[in-house]
Amino acid sequence: MPTLIPRLERLAIDTIRTLSIDGVQKANSGHPGAPMGAAPMAYALWARFLRHSPANPEWPDRDRFVLSAGHASMLLYALLHLTGYDLTLDDLKSFRQWGSRTPGHPEYGLTPGVEATTGPLGQGFTNAVGMAIAERRLAAEFNRPGHEVVDHHTYVIASDGDLQEGIASEAASLAGHLRLGRLVVLYDDNHIQLDGPTDMAWSEDVLARFDAYGWHTRRVTDGNDVGAIADAIEAARADERPSLIAVRTHIGFGSPNRQDTQKAHGAALGEDEVRLTKLAYGWDPDAQFLVPDEALAVFRAAVPAGEALVAAWEDRMSGYAAAFPAEAAEFRRRVAGDLRDGWDAGLKTYTLGEDFATRQASQAAIAALVGPVPELFGGAADLSESNLTDVRGAGDFRAGPDGAAGRNLRFGVREHAMGGIANGIALHGGFIPYAATFLTFSDYMRGSVRLAALSGLHVIYVWTHDSVGLGEDGPTHQPVEHYAALRAIPNLWFVRPGDANEATAAWALAVERRDGPVALALTRQKLPTLAGTAERAREGLRRGGYVLRPASSEARGGMPAIILIATGSELQLAMGAAEALDSEGMPARVVSLPCWERFDAQDAAYRESVLSRAVTARVTIEAGVSLGWERYAGDHGAIIGIDHFGASAPAGAIFTAFGFTVARVVDVARQVASGSLRGRLPTLDWGHG
Amino acid sequence: MPTLIPRLERLAIDTIRTLSIDGVQKANSGHPGAPMGAAPMAYALWARFLRHSPANPEWPDRDRFVLSAGHASMLLYALLHLTGYDLTLDDLKSFRQWGSRTPGHPEYGLTPGVEATTGPLGQGFTNAVGMAIAERRLAAEFNRPGHEVVDHHTYVIASDGDLQEGIASEAASLAGHLRLGRLVVLYDDNHIQLDGPTDMAWSEDVLARFDAYGWHTRRVTDGNDVGAIADAIEAARADERPSLIAVRTHIGFGSPNRQDTQKAHGAALGEDEVRLTKLAYGWDPDAQFLVPDEALAVFRAAVPAGEALVAAWEDRMSGYAAAFPAEAAEFRRRVAGDLRDGWDAGLKTYTLGEDFATRQASQAAIAALVGPVPELFGGAADLSESNLTDVRGAGDFRAGPDGAAGRNLRFGVREHAMGGIANGIALHGGFIPYAATFLTFSDYMRGSVRLAALSGLHVIYVWTHDSVGLGEDGPTHQPVEHYAALRAIPNLWFVRPGDANEATAAWALAVERRDGPVALALTRQKLPTLAGTAERAREGLRRGGYVLRPASSEARGGMPAIILIATGSELQLAMGAAEALDSEGMPARVVSLPCWERFDAQDAAYRESVLSRAVTARVTIEAGVSLGWERYAGDHGAIIGIDHFGASAPAGAIFTAFGFTVARVVDVARQVASGSLRGRLPTLDWGHG
Repeated sequence: MPTLIPRLERLAIDTIRTLSIDGVQKANSGHPGAPMGAAPMAYALWARFLRHSPANPEWPDRDRFVLSAGHASMLLYALLHLTGYDLTLDDLKSFRQWGSRTPGHPEYGLTPGVEATTGPLGQGFTNAVGMAIAERRLAAEFNRPGHEVVDHHTYVIASDGDLQEGIASEAASLAGHLRLGRLVVLYDDNHIQLDGPTDMAWSEDVLARFDAYGWHTRRVTDGNDVGAIADAIEAARADERPSLIAVRTHIGFGSPNRQDTQKAHGAALGEDEVRLTKLAYGWDPDAQFLVPDEALAVFRAAVPAGEALVAAWEDRMSGYAAAFPAEAAEFRRRVAGDLRDGWDAGLKTYTLGEDFATRQASQAAIAALVGPVPELFGGAADLSESNLTDVRGAGDFRAGPDGAAGRNLRFGVREHAMGGIANGIALHGGFIPYAATFLTFSDYMRGSVRLAALSGLHVIYVWTHDSVGLGEDGPTHQPVEHYAALRAIPNLWFVRPGDANEATAAWALAVERRDGPVALALTRQKLPTLAGTAERAREGLRRGGYVLRPASSEARGGMPAIILIATGSELQLAMGAAEALDSEGMPARVVSLPCWERFDAQDAAYRESVLSRAVTARVTIEAGVSLGWERYAGDHGAIIGIDHFGASAPAGAIFTAFGFTVARVVDVARQVASGSLRGRLPTLDWGHG
Repeated sequence: MPTLIPRLERLAIDTIRTLSIDGVQKANSGHPGAPMGAAPMAYALWARFLRHSPANPEWPDRDRFVLSAGHASMLLYALLHLTGYDLTLDDLKSFRQWGSRTPGHPEYGLTPGVEATTGPLGQGFTNAVGMAIAERRLAAEFNRPGHEVVDHHTYVIASDGDLQEGIASEAASLAGHLRLGRLVVLYDDNHIQLDGPTDMAWSEDVLARFDAYGWHTRRVTDGNDVGAIADAIEAARADERPSLIAVRTHIGFGSPNRQDTQKAHGAALGEDEVRLTKLAYGWDPDAQFLVPDEALAVFRAAVPAGEALVAAWEDRMSGYAAAFPAEAAEFRRRVAGDLRDGWDAGLKTYTLGEDFATRQASQAAIAALVGPVPELFGGAADLSESNLTDVRGAGDFRAGPDGAAGRNLRFGVREHAMGGIANGIALHGGFIPYAATFLTFSDYMRGSVRLAALSGLHVIYVWTHDSVGLGEDGPTHQPVEHYAALRAIPNLWFVRPGDANEATAAWALAVERRDGPVALALTRQKLPTLAGTAERAREGLRRGGYVLRPASSEARGGMPAIILIATGSELQLAMGAAEALDSEGMPARVVSLPCWERFDAQDAAYRESVLSRAVTARVTIEAGVSLGWERYAGDHGAIIGIDHFGASAPAGAIFTAFGFTVARVVDVARQVASGSLRGRLPTLDWGHG
């Protein structure tokens, strides 16, 4: 071992290492090398700096620790077990097994003390930027002179792979711009990635790059030097900029035949090498999952220390509550994630003749919500004037004194970081984050959207310009496949409202949800307010789908001859066609289906009341790919969609050419009712080829 | 005007500006500001450096020009018209109109001279990195001493938004690593983006960042100084590193009331401001789409100059063909994109009992193809040992002497750049690029995948670890929604082969396609070779779906009692279940459906021969979300899928818990045949909640 460190620290560090080795070996699957190399930095951070309470993992003012290099999960599980979180040695022994709390990569909500679901590289780093933003803004909202109830740091361990990812580059640039001084990133600089030495694909000067972003950077040349690591963390905490500390480590440290090779990265060491490595540590080679009492005592000091921290904080809260009772109550509410009573009282109802784009209705909803729902906090990726997401008069969240009073986040053209930062704000707590761009560019942030859904994070996406109705910007900017692609993501509610009342109800639904993300797909173009939405949209959106217009026959207890099903801007076509069909003696029901996920979750009776099985003549209308619509159209129905990319032209020209007109819906409906047409229909004129 | 430039250059530059202004004004839609600011740099580049031939837009050795800031499309259209490409003034007048060749953002394949579809920011920059890689490798393959048949540069105009995007950061890091000295990027540094001044969200030192990547960087302080810009380009061409030239420009230059404001960015100036701006240029305020003869003459010199360049190159080719006839013929073949005769002769056929993961069969296919298909050129995003995509013994493509002889691209953990670079290689020509990562991380590169599909680029994606069968790495790494999400993208062929023969056939299909991307979803885990694939897979894959196993009744001219439909690793379950069902008197057909896009494109008779409408008892089996499967299951069929995220455990445990077993398929099939079960089925045990 090149560096002499105190015996007890060494014992503690080797306990992390051997637990990680044993966990991976027992599973015969996982990543032992990174924990072996990074154990000293993790020890330095957790033993000397991290303010947390293993007995109170939800303590709001705890420091946040994010293992962005999620493949090193055994490092985190070892730390959680050793410092006294509710995670047993048996949990560690069931690493990567069915039903365990120690999955291959850390999962938020599954394991106490895991602050973020990580593994997809760059995401954890970016989450941490969001956490640091949330800390700063929450502090600005609630702290008062002499009452620092929000006062914590965010720490990260990141790998070379994290720093290669574009999402992390975006997030780092923004973190430097915002001067997030309470963010400290330890970079596990081990020179090895899965394919081999990092210099196979990477020769940039990482610290110079972060300097260029406006970060404070340091280098620690010996990754086993706990003192030097601690000094660097101390310096990082003292700096007003975010900090990147490159710690030169050795992957698979101590393994005679694996250290400094990619063989230590993604596979168990093997029994022989495990023994050799333990011998190199001066460890009993036959002991597995061994936790020396002395080492455990070092780590478990975190329990009483943490309880003291929480008690001191509760004292501060008491003083705060005495001086600022309303603020204290509000703080507790915010942290609990409850909504204020009457939070939705200001939402508007629109009447016939009031035509608005759904993005405009969204803008009005935001304006109505930002007062009673101060936890709403977000912004756009340089499209706020198109997305209409700015909180008017609330200022920008920015660096410098009073900068945290600003409420509008300016993400720049950084969609993926926006998604990861929104996740980090949600993970931190105290906020309902929202993130806006064009629907097409949801592709750029999809990695983060998936993690929001997987982690059950309450994030709201405001994705405008939601169809070929975007018009002249053309196919690069026109979503056609995105409805289907987003509906495919489990636990994401994708909502495409059809007029201003539905858009308002969609916002209400998005605010009400607690256990996952909600995406709003909103039009650029104006839409008419439709008959019935004022009365039915709020409950209809909660249900995901509803009968917006019963067929004329239904008033007399009869059934519809046909059901027209639509979402978004095509709902007006269904309404117009239903009028025409009904007037010519074909009773037509219109079903608005803005959120499939909610509708599919309703009980069978409700679903039957909307999409009655007996009515097999159905037409679905949506300006996107047909994929998935067979679920509602059925074998005898027809699907009006767009199974190709869009075109650059004024919106009206595109809709007409593609066949999105009342006349065509009427024509199709007649043919479907007569049994002469079914299935997916081609667009009338693509304009290409 | 702050800088004096020669009168004629000024006239030429103002012609670009006024055409851009007029095009946007006539469309009443678009982005006039960037062309107005960037016209001088575009002029400097096109008039003094760009080696192209407007009469021969496909000349293989032309310099490539990519307008990464695609919203400035009128700049490019103006240049193309003025320099003599097949693009008329009338085309410019129909900017952003239905059916025009001047869409809102440049579209490859639609407009002669447009080298890449751009608009989604960061993509064009990244395409250009791919083009520079392609140029270097093609030169290394074909040039011989004294015979430089490949010898060109790649130039880019990029915006602040391009450089904020993570994809561009990834690509820039790799370009620096590879020392792509023939890549020259002009950065239109106008300090304004859509939301306002760039410093609202961006305060990094861009040039220092690119220095850290290993680029040569320069600054030009006056964006109207053509001489200074030309000097910088000259220096860039002389440097062995890729170059970034930050040119300080003024958005909306010359507009009295819009210059240097975001109002010049994304909307027409308005008629009054157009007049005022033209007056400021010394232009006739009433003239529209005016091209002064003198200016046109300056630009049109590109036509004879280009023809001379092509003639000289053809001379070089003649000399080359005399000295190296085989190489010359091969070069012509490569550039034309034709395959060698017998290219697929080495592909293996697997027999029963040979069990391989489809990623292993893919590895064997790559090994068999790299000789006769030398245009295959690609690599992985730091997962080559998992994706099994390395060309053995072929070395890495890297910087330095002989580095271009290497055939394996090491992308690092940069999936999005990998996608954009693959597009750039395809756009350049001479190669069939492939790009590999885990299927889950296709999300990270989705922006580029979409553009490959929209642009009709022949790119192959090798996405392994294609289901929960990935096992212990857990839900962060397990695709469940990705099949549906990728099937949603128009013009992408998504192929999920079910055994080694289907995987081999999938590679053949991927190589054969010319007009768009093909994605291969491959297993981590071993699969049995199935009866019938050796004979039927090749044609079956071309058809997208086929009868792999007829029901026992079909030999006697009867119909199946049930059809089992599956893809990928679930095909073996369908085969096993069919055996069992048939043996108990329920004749069961197995349909393999690896590529929906191909199958849906077959004629009705073929589709009926596979999925006979009369057989309504159907079971579909695929380890992913059910979305879309109703298309094949029909109203009376059942869908075995996974409508939630996966879990961390050994693959076998997951498949069993989720209900992916022969026994369950048999059980479901019986119930479907009896009419007691239909629709989407829940998984047996999720393991969560």
